Amino acid sequence: MRTIDWRDDHVVVIDQTRLPDDLILLDLHTVADLVDAIRRLAVRGAPALGVAGALGVALAAVVTPHDVPAQAALVRAARPTAVNLAWGVDRALARLGDGLDAVVAEALAVLEADVTVNRALGERGADWLLGRVAGPLNVHTHCNAGALACVEWGTALGVVRALHERGAIGHVYADETRPLLQGARLTVWELGRLGIPHTLVVDSAGASVIANGLVHAVVVGADRIAANGDVVNKIGTYPLALAAARAGIPFVVAAPESTVDMATPSGAAVSIEVRDGAELTEFAGTRVAPAGTAALNYAFDVTPADLVTAIVTEARVVEPSAGGHP
Amino acid sequence: MRTIDWRDDHVVVIDQTRLPDDLILLDLHTVADLVDAIRRLAVRGAPALGVAGALGVALAAVVTPHDVPAQAALVRAARPTAVNLAWGVDRALARLGDGLDAVVAEALAVLEADVTVNRALGERGADWLLGRVAGPLNVHTHCNAGALACVEWGTALGVVRALHERGAIGHVYADETRPLLQGARLTVWELGRLGIPHTLVVDSAGASVIANGLVHAVVVGADRIAANGDVVNKIGTYPLALAAARAGIPFVVAAPESTVDMATPSGAAVSIEVRDGAELTEFAGTRVAPAGTAALNYAFDVTPADLVTAIVTEARVVEPSAGGHP
Repeated sequence: MRTIDWRDDHVVVIDQTRLPDDLILLDLHTVADLVDAIRRLAVRGAPALGVAGALGVALAAVVTPHDVPAQAALVRAARPTAVNLAWGVDRALARLGDGLDAVVAEALAVLEADVTVNRALGERGADWLLGRVAGPLNVHTHCNAGALACVEWGTALGVVRALHERGAIGHVYADETRPLLQGARLTVWELGRLGIPHTLVVDSAGASVIANGLVHAVVVGADRIAANGDVVNKIGTYPLALAAARAGIPFVVAAPESTVDMATPSGAAVSIEVRDGAELTEFAGTRVAPAGTAALNYAFDVTPADLVTAIVTEARVVEPSAGGHP
Repeated sequence: MRTIDWRDDHVVVIDQTRLPDDLILLDLHTVADLVDAIRRLAVRGAPALGVAGALGVALAAVVTPHDVPAQAALVRAARPTAVNLAWGVDRALARLGDGLDAVVAEALAVLEADVTVNRALGERGADWLLGRVAGPLNVHTHCNAGALACVEWGTALGVVRALHERGAIGHVYADETRPLLQGARLTVWELGRLGIPHTLVVDSAGASVIANGLVHAVVVGADRIAANGDVVNKIGTYPLALAAARAGIPFVVAAPESTVDMATPSGAAVSIEVRDGAELTEFAGTRVAPAGTAALNYAFDVTPADLVTAIVTEARVVEPSAGGHP
């Protein structure tokens, strides 16, 4: 089963807002449907957004063949921070001169490539970690960078799965990831299905898990990697990097090359999405803070390059804290 | 209105599990009632627990005069991490040789002292901050170290209130404080009643608020301060200290002298309370993680002394990161 796929003439996604209780597929027949699914995080995760971007242009080619560039622009703007979304849109849109079929074919190539890219970076990440720490490894992760963030394998959890296939994973500690609980809802669900031992903690306990020596490494995904090695990822990533540096354990970012944005010089140049404060002040429809409370809901944070031990892609390992640059 | 008080022959507390929606007073007529209120956090916060400890012994003196030491032991054991609870019990129990009236009188003295102690440390903290940063100050805080954590003034929020009285507070950023949301429910409620401008963030965004230069200082309370200056406070305090050190802004701990435990050499010697994992996996009765998910629910963390810029009590300012020791 795939997180996002193409069926005949439309896009199919798992509705991640319904997990872990209900596994429901959404059929998205229009660009508007897809943009809505992206905005409300029914489909999320940087690599999956790259695929969604490409498939969105394919959808436009099928449904509104005379309006593809404008429709593609709507997809591109659905979320601002992950570079992969724009990358996927641009990949498919670049083939428009070759005809609508070429657009769809390119989008399908992006879809299929995600799986092989994930597999490759997973193996590379496992190699790198086992070269530094004797397994079995205990790993801390944040948010969801698993199959549900990609097409079917995962990035950070792809590394964990590669370790697991080698019998080299001990235990995974997963942050719940407020406000939308992608860790509690999605990562824990994936780890359970994979039979990987795991424990859930609140986000702010991640630093204690690290300080108390419960894990050998932190492994996370990324939404955008700047040219200087700064990493933009789900809010809560930066404090884990601070804690890993203090504890002297590796802080590893697993992401496809499409996440590396050489046009962005540093994290300071990235537009950080600020989402609706109601994601904090309400919980499952129940208000948890006093009525009218102002909330600042950063969706992402910036981890400075000097705190990043390794960036692992399908093609290479870069070590920013040792002076390496993407 | 007081968070905890003595009325004729029993203890009265605000039920903090019902805030911010309902302001309900609980009449606690037995030690068992009080222990239950402490365990389920109807009354919480280190200074308030110190008062609860003393009033618990007073309650035993009134209700079970022939069994005071055993009843006091039950109160003492209700929560393990905050040193104040044991301190309050011991203060009142030490007077048992002078008769039951002396026990009650001592407990009432502990109750009244909390207010003056809070006021004094609030002024001292405001003086210290304004000596380093020109006001108005923006402050980041975590959990609830306000009136609801004490009798009626507050420790960390006592510093904020002292600044506010001087027209020297700009804005307060408050972490929601998972899993029980003391920040979202209690601190935001207090700040609203005080008319202090404030914004709520998820715990893991605190590091970004600090890195982005939105605040001039972090001010938190403490549940126990070790002899070497390590600070035990609500889970999520340590990553804020890491972020403050990285940003070069003061990390200030505001707590009464009763929080300083010279019998504890360092944070490593403190028993960190681990609470029920259901506090993470369920939210307002709704399960948010897959059924059967294991959760590790540390209630507190340890901030190493070298990350603590100042510990402010009613009597003094200690600067551990500059080599000072309590």
